[in-house]
Amino acid sequence: MARWEPGAADRLRACALELFVAQGFEQTTATEIATAAGVTERTFYRHFEDKREVLFGGQEALQRRFVDAVGAAPVSATPLEVVACALDSATDFFADERRPSSRLRGTVIAAHAGLRERELLKMAALAHALTEALHERGVPDPVATLAAESGVTVFRVAFESWIAPDEERSFDDIQRSVLAELTLLSKNAT
Amino acid sequence: MARWEPGAADRLRACALELFVAQGFEQTTATEIATAAGVTERTFYRHFEDKREVLFGGQEALQRRFVDAVGAAPVSATPLEVVACALDSATDFFADERRPSSRLRGTVIAAHAGLRERELLKMAALAHALTEALHERGVPDPVATLAAESGVTVFRVAFESWIAPDEERSFDDIQRSVLAELTLLSKNAT
Repeated sequence: MARWEPGAADRLRACALELFVAQGFEQTTATEIATAAGVTERTFYRHFEDKREVLFGGQEALQRRFVDAVGAAPVSATPLEVVACALDSATDFFADERRPSSRLRGTVIAAHAGLRERELLKMAALAHALTEALHERGVPDPVATLAAESGVTVFRVAFESWIAPDEERSFDDIQRSVLAELTLLSKNAT
Repeated sequence: MARWEPGAADRLRACALELFVAQGFEQTTATEIATAAGVTERTFYRHFEDKREVLFGGQEALQRRFVDAVGAAPVSATPLEVVACALDSATDFFADERRPSSRLRGTVIAAHAGLRERELLKMAALAHALTEALHERGVPDPVATLAAESGVTVFRVAFESWIAPDEERSFDDIQRSVLAELTLLSKNAT
């Protein structure tokens, strides 16, 4: 079994998504996921704390990327430009080859109220982390919160579009266009 | 007891907040709240579904007000101007005489992870309702979602400031200033 380990997390994730879609999130056990992936239950728990983490585990890495990018943005950047740097920094997480599995994940989450709530709370945590990172740069409130929340809204809207059934544009293209719409929103207002 | 009924909901709310602050939300029962307010438990349940509703019951009225204001905004208004109308429409919910009890409510919610999550989810529901109301006006996505989410962020930030310990500005003044900051955020961006 050891020689299978390198790809185990990916296989477990793929099998979990298929099972969640086919029979529901609640009805699927870690044991079933492990069996479908050809590994032991122990191997499952070496990679994931529980079956929910299969769906949400990636968000810590996203948050770290965002926060690091805020720290690395040019000193001269405005708060919204800093947030744009953060958004840009993570687009490789959403490469086209990951779109099919992100769509499956979206289907699973949409079908389950508890998972939808968890997704919302994760996004709130992401906004909070971005706000703190802006504070670290010396951006005061309310500007830091407004910029961070706006950034996470742009990310969420872009992500939802990216996994929509007929969407073919890259995540990067979509996100830039949503950010442009956000900028227009205020420019057109009195 | 009947002659006390008219003010019962207000008294129940005031007693509940005091008990939640003094002994914790989890540790307080509906019976204790009723006793403190000098009414029966049955009276409590005539006004509130459960003790959580004492804290969150007002949000349905806020949401209705927002949605109605979106529908009533001038045809010529831009999406962000429509959202500004919605925000303006509800400032009487946050009159200065309500600030002390809103501060107590904030203390109770800040001390309890489950209540903080519920508050976040209520705000997400508010943004969703605003988005739908903008769709009704013919505003397409992503603009509708961006405008609605921005509006709810402005509201949240303004509300947090309003209940901050040393804040003396009116809710209306704070909210206008936060909205102005939001507009500047994008105007300064390239």
